[in-house]
Amino acid sequence: MSKTGGHLASNLGVVELTLALHYVFDFKKDKLLWDVGHQCYTHKIITGRKSSFDRLRCSDGISGFPDPSESEYDEFLVGHAGTSIATAIGLAMGQGRRGKDDRIVALVGDASIVNGVSFEALNNLHLVKRQLLVVLNDNSMAIDPTQGAVAKYFSRVRLSQTYEDLRRTTNNILEHLPVIGKGVEEVIERIKKSLRMALPASQLFESLNIPYFGPVDGHDINSLIKLFRALSHQEHPAILHVYTGKGKGFSPAEQDRRRFHSTGPFRMNGDAVKSELQRPSFTEVFGESLLELAEKDERIVAITSAMCDGTGLVGFRKKFPDRFYDVGIAESAAVDIAAGLAKAGLKPVVAIYSTFLQRSFDQIFQEVALQNLPVIFCVDRAGVVGADGPTHHGIMDIGFLRMMPNMVLTAPADAVELKLALEFAVGENSPIVIRYPKDCVPEQKHVRPACSQPFELGRSIVVKRGKDCQIAIVSYGSVLKEAFEAARRLAKDGISVDVINARFAAPVDENIVALLGEGKGVITVEDHRLACGFGSAVLESATAALGGIKGPIRMLGVPRRFFRHDLRDSQLMEAGINADKIATTAREMLKACEAIGCPRDFA
Amino acid sequence: MSKTGGHLASNLGVVELTLALHYVFDFKKDKLLWDVGHQCYTHKIITGRKSSFDRLRCSDGISGFPDPSESEYDEFLVGHAGTSIATAIGLAMGQGRRGKDDRIVALVGDASIVNGVSFEALNNLHLVKRQLLVVLNDNSMAIDPTQGAVAKYFSRVRLSQTYEDLRRTTNNILEHLPVIGKGVEEVIERIKKSLRMALPASQLFESLNIPYFGPVDGHDINSLIKLFRALSHQEHPAILHVYTGKGKGFSPAEQDRRRFHSTGPFRMNGDAVKSELQRPSFTEVFGESLLELAEKDERIVAITSAMCDGTGLVGFRKKFPDRFYDVGIAESAAVDIAAGLAKAGLKPVVAIYSTFLQRSFDQIFQEVALQNLPVIFCVDRAGVVGADGPTHHGIMDIGFLRMMPNMVLTAPADAVELKLALEFAVGENSPIVIRYPKDCVPEQKHVRPACSQPFELGRSIVVKRGKDCQIAIVSYGSVLKEAFEAARRLAKDGISVDVINARFAAPVDENIVALLGEGKGVITVEDHRLACGFGSAVLESATAALGGIKGPIRMLGVPRRFFRHDLRDSQLMEAGINADKIATTAREMLKACEAIGCPRDFA
Repeated sequence: MSKTGGHLASNLGVVELTLALHYVFDFKKDKLLWDVGHQCYTHKIITGRKSSFDRLRCSDGISGFPDPSESEYDEFLVGHAGTSIATAIGLAMGQGRRGKDDRIVALVGDASIVNGVSFEALNNLHLVKRQLLVVLNDNSMAIDPTQGAVAKYFSRVRLSQTYEDLRRTTNNILEHLPVIGKGVEEVIERIKKSLRMALPASQLFESLNIPYFGPVDGHDINSLIKLFRALSHQEHPAILHVYTGKGKGFSPAEQDRRRFHSTGPFRMNGDAVKSELQRPSFTEVFGESLLELAEKDERIVAITSAMCDGTGLVGFRKKFPDRFYDVGIAESAAVDIAAGLAKAGLKPVVAIYSTFLQRSFDQIFQEVALQNLPVIFCVDRAGVVGADGPTHHGIMDIGFLRMMPNMVLTAPADAVELKLALEFAVGENSPIVIRYPKDCVPEQKHVRPACSQPFELGRSIVVKRGKDCQIAIVSYGSVLKEAFEAARRLAKDGISVDVINARFAAPVDENIVALLGEGKGVITVEDHRLACGFGSAVLESATAALGGIKGPIRMLGVPRRFFRHDLRDSQLMEAGINADKIATTAREMLKACEAIGCPRDFA
Repeated sequence: MSKTGGHLASNLGVVELTLALHYVFDFKKDKLLWDVGHQCYTHKIITGRKSSFDRLRCSDGISGFPDPSESEYDEFLVGHAGTSIATAIGLAMGQGRRGKDDRIVALVGDASIVNGVSFEALNNLHLVKRQLLVVLNDNSMAIDPTQGAVAKYFSRVRLSQTYEDLRRTTNNILEHLPVIGKGVEEVIERIKKSLRMALPASQLFESLNIPYFGPVDGHDINSLIKLFRALSHQEHPAILHVYTGKGKGFSPAEQDRRRFHSTGPFRMNGDAVKSELQRPSFTEVFGESLLELAEKDERIVAITSAMCDGTGLVGFRKKFPDRFYDVGIAESAAVDIAAGLAKAGLKPVVAIYSTFLQRSFDQIFQEVALQNLPVIFCVDRAGVVGADGPTHHGIMDIGFLRMMPNMVLTAPADAVELKLALEFAVGENSPIVIRYPKDCVPEQKHVRPACSQPFELGRSIVVKRGKDCQIAIVSYGSVLKEAFEAARRLAKDGISVDVINARFAAPVDENIVALLGEGKGVITVEDHRLACGFGSAVLESATAALGGIKGPIRMLGVPRRFFRHDLRDSQLMEAGINADKIATTAREMLKACEAIGCPRDFA
C-alpha cells in the first residue's frame, strides 16, 4: 500500500477482527456484509487476492471496496455508509424464508451506525427471527473523530473502561452465552449482574430491545474467536461492540489517523511520497475562496457531513469554528439544518460530494427548493472520480437537481470561475448548486478575459467564435479545457468551431438554445450521465422553445453503464469525454453534413 | 371536515396541545415547526383561517399542510415526515447567530421520530446551545399502529403508566424545572429521584444526552400551559413527551383511527358519504393483482413504509402476514431490506409512493441498481396527486430512476396493463419500476386487444395507426386515455394520427426513436416533470441513434413550477396534460408544418 495508496488506517484496525471472523465463519456459505466497505483489505488478502494488491484501485487491478465480480466471498459492491444492517436484515429474512441456515454478519463502524439508514435498520432488527450478528467496530473515528451524541456516548463508555474491564466483559459473555435453553434476556441479565457495573454502552441498544454484548477488545484475536463461536449459535439478532484502533501496528498511521484514512503512496517512515508539482485542486480553490468570502460576509456558514478535509473546509473550520458544522455521516439532516439556517437569514454553504448528496434528494426538494431558500450546494467529486470507482462517481446530480423548480445549477470551468460562481451564489436569493470534479484546476489562460466576467444568471460565455463555422462545442464545467483543446486541433486542420462555456445547466442560456434553431451542428460535453444531464437540458429547452431541433446534435457524457475504478483520465477517455472524442465527433458530423446537405437534412 | 374530508383523526388529537402552545408562545415571533404537517388544522383555525375551512384542500381554498403563503404563522410548507427537528436545529442556530431570542418549537409524532432524518437530527441536537423545544406527540399510531423497536419501547412505557403517574410526572417537572441557577442535568436528576420510578422513556434520549421530560397527558390543557411556560425558559434543547389520542372527542374517529387518518366526506355518525360509483383505483388493482401472483409464486414478498392501506396491501398482509413487512416511515431502509431479500433469491415488491421514494434514491442506486438485483418497485401516486398538493406530487421518479444502469422503467395505461406489467416484472431478473397514478383505472375497451399483449422489454404498442398521417402521439402510462381521446376528436375533423402506448421509459422502444427519424411530428405525453421525463428520454435516445431529430416535436408534461392542492384533473389541465391540449398541440403542429413545408424544414 505504500506504493498504491488506499484506505490504510481503517484496514490496519480490523486485521484481527477480520481474521477471527474468517476463522469462525465460512464465508463461502455464510455472508459477511461490509458497511462502506473500504476496510475489506485483510478480507481480500485471505480470500485469494493477495497477489493483486500491487494493483489495488488501479485499472487492471482489484477494487478498494468489496466486489462480487472479484470473489464469491464478496456479497455487495458498496462504498456509501450505513447500509449493511438493513441489507443484512433483508438477507437474513430471505435466507430464513428459503430454509437456509447460513450465518450472517454485518460489520459496521461507529461513524456509520449513526447514519439515518442504520438507525432505521436497528429500529427494524426485530423483523429478523433468526441469527444475525452486527459487529460494531468502534474506533471512535470517521475520517475525523466521529461527531454527534451517539459518538459522545460511545466515547464516555470508552473512557470509563480499562483494559481489565474489557477482559472481564469478554469472559463474562463467554461464561454465560453458551448456556442452552436460556432466553437471551436472561443471559444478558446474568452477564450484567456478574459484572462490576451494568454494561454501560447497552443503554441505547436496550431501549431498542437489541441484545447487546460488549465492549470487548477488537485486537485480542483469541477472545474474538471464542466470542464469535458463541455468538454464531444465537438464533436471534445481536450486537457485539468491539474497540479497535485505527492504524494499529503502523505507528505513523496510529499517530495521524486522518491522513492515513485514505493515503497516497508513502515511505515506510510515514512520509508522503511527493507527487510531481501539480496545480491546486478544485477542492482547495473552493476552500480558499469560501474563506475569503466568509471574511467579508458573516452570514456565510459551512456545513459538511464527516468530510471536512475532503471538501476543503479545514481552513474554514480553523478560522471560523463557530460557523462550521460537521454533522457526521448524515447528509439528509445536513440539508435540513442548512434550510433552517437559511430561513434564519444566513447563507449556508453545504459541501457534500455529489454521490453522497443523493442521500439528500428529498430534503433538497422539500426543505430547500419548495421553500425557495438560498442554500448554496458546493458539490465536490462531481463527475467520474477515478480509483474509488462506481459507488463514488458523481454523475447524477445535474439530473436530480434540475427537476426541482427554483434550483439554479452552475459549474465553473476552472479556478477563476469557481470563485466567480461562489460570489454569484452568495448574491442570489435562491438555492444554487456549484459542481466541480475531483481534479486539479486546469491552466486556462486562453479563455481569459471572456471567462473572467462575473456570473450572470443563465448566461453562457462564448470562449471562441468560429469563422463561418458549422459547429459549436458547448461544454458544461471543467470539461471546457477539453472543448478548447479539440477546437485547437480542429483549427490545425482548417476546421473552425465555436466554443461555448455554458456555465449554467438550469436555466439553459437562450443563446445556446438559439444555436439549435440555426441549424448549426451542436456538440454538448459534460462530465455527467447522458441521461438527464446538461445535454438533455439543452435538448428539452430547444424543443420547448423551437418545437424541434434543426441541426445535427451529438451529446458527449457518461453512457448508461457502471465504470470501474481506474485513473480519472482513463475513465473520461473510456466514456468519450475528452478532446480526442470531441474532435472526432466534430469531424464525423461535418462529413455527415457534407454528404447530405446539412443543415437542411442531416439524418 | 365532514364535507371536505381531510386528516381528521390526527388533528382531533392535538387540539389541546396546539391551543396550549399558542397560549404560551407568540408564533408571530416564535417559530412552530410541524413535522409532516397534516395535523395543523387547529393551528390554522386560530390563526385567521377558520372561515376558509369549507374549502380545505380545494382549488381556491387553504392547504391541508402548513403554508407560508397563507399565513405568517406558518414557517415551512411540509408534508414528508421526520424533517422538523433538523430544520429546527438550523433555525435555532441561525437565530442564535443573529442574536434573536425567538423560542423555537418542533412538534413531531412518534411515527416521524423513528425516521432516519429525525435520528440524524437527534444525534446533532447538541449543536444547539440555546432554547429549542421538541414536543414528541405520541399517539402510538402512524396511519397504522407505529412499527419498530422504538414504537415497542414507547408502548412498553405507555402501558406501564397510569393516569396518576402522568399527573405526578407533570407536577414533578413543574416543581423542579423553574429553579434558577440549576444545571439541567441536576434538575433531571431531582425530578427522577422524586418520582416513584425512574423516568422510563428517558433511556433512549439519555443515551443521546438529550434532556427529556415526560410522559405527560397531552389533553390536559392547564398542565400543558404550565409545562410550556416552564420549558420555554430553558436555554438548551429539550424533549417533552406527551400522550395524545388520535381522533380524540369524536367517537367514530376514536374507534377507527386508521380510516379517519385521512377521510373523505362523512356523516356525523361516522358513516362514509358514498361517492358515486367509480371504477377501481390503480392502487386496488395493484393490490389484487399482486395477491393473485403471490398465490402462484411464493418468492413474492411485499415491503411498505407505513403505507399498507395507501399502497393497497391490506389484502396481501391479511393473506400472507409472514411475507409482508411494514418498516415504518423508513423508505431508505425499506429498499436496502428489499435488496437483501432479492439477494437471497426472493422477489421483493417495494410499494412506496413516488414522492416518498425520493428518500430511497441512494439505496436504489447502490444496493439495487449497482448490484443488478431484481427488486420490483411499485410506485403509487406517480403524477400529480390532487388535494395533497406540492409536497406529494410524484413527478420526479422517471428522472431519478432512469439515470441508473440496469433499471427498467415501465408504466401501465390501465388495469389490464398493470397486471401485465406486474407479471412481466416478476419474470425479469433486473430491477424494475412500475409507476401508476392516484386515480381510477380508465375504461379502455377501445385499446384492446393491442394493449392486452404481454409486456416485452422495451416494446411499445401501436394502439391506433393513422392513415398517411403526419403526427404520432406517444403517451407513457395512464395518460394513454387522453391521447386516445385526442385522436378521436382529431379524427372528427379529418385529422388522422398514430397513437402509441410507450409502456417503457427505459429502455425507449427503437420504434419510437425511428419515428423521430422519419420526420413525422411527435407529441409525447406524460404525467411527470418535463425535465428528465419520458419525453426527454425519447429526445436523448433519438439524438444518440440518429444524430438529430428530423421532424417537429412537442412534449407535454408538468412544467417547471410547483402545483398547489386542487383536484387532480384540474392540475392535469393546468399542466396541459389532457386530451384538449394534445389535440390543440396536434393542430398547431400541422398548421406550422403546412406553412413551412414540414417535415423538411419546420422551425
